[in-house]
Amino acid sequence: MSRRHCFLLRVRPDRLDEYRRRHQQVWPEMLRALAETGWRNYSLFLRGDGLLVGYVEADDLQASLDAMARTDVNARWQAEMAPFFVGLEGGGPDEGLVLLQEVFHLEDQLPGNS
Amino acid sequence: MSRRHCFLLRVRPDRLDEYRRRHQQVWPEMLRALAETGWRNYSLFLRGDGLLVGYVEADDLQASLDAMARTDVNARWQAEMAPFFVGLEGGGPDEGLVLLQEVFHLEDQLPGNS
Repeated sequence: MSRRHCFLLRVRPDRLDEYRRRHQQVWPEMLRALAETGWRNYSLFLRGDGLLVGYVEADDLQASLDAMARTDVNARWQAEMAPFFVGLEGGGPDEGLVLLQEVFHLEDQLPGNS
Repeated sequence: MSRRHCFLLRVRPDRLDEYRRRHQQVWPEMLRALAETGWRNYSLFLRGDGLLVGYVEADDLQASLDAMARTDVNARWQAEMAPFFVGLEGGGPDEGLVLLQEVFHLEDQLPGNS
């Protein structure tokens, strides 16, 4: 059973272009680590003012976060990304993610998809 | 080729519970219309302050929005939903959606998924 997850972060408005550029070429080792730790259909969406929406499907997101946290590449990636974000309070962008509540999923309610 | 889309709306903080409740039992006719007009893997996520994130996959979202706009059930549903939202400026919640820019998608960059 895949579970869908959504979280929000805030990118510094003066670093949006660089943030976009960095995410067009994420390190192959980072991509592999995400895939191997169960991150699927993972997208990031950016609003013009820096609001960032993350959407990811994972059977057990906490397990996937924990598994990423044990990789070296994640520590290096998050250290490079941290200065792009507002209000992390000392942690990395992957720490203390606040998840939104899913209140609707089309396929859960469609007949024949139960 | 599926395309992923993300949009934001704002639900009135005093109507969050009712909004959640209504979305636990969306009219079957509305669900069918969404599926028939190409909405797939469609989720809504709600933050405690009323920020609502929509995520949907569609080959051509504008075509799917237009097709929904031609159905009677959508007009009835959107009319019932409009009072739940902040700042619609006279339109329905399905009108004038502002899409965020997708800046990353894991599977697009993973080797072997091109």
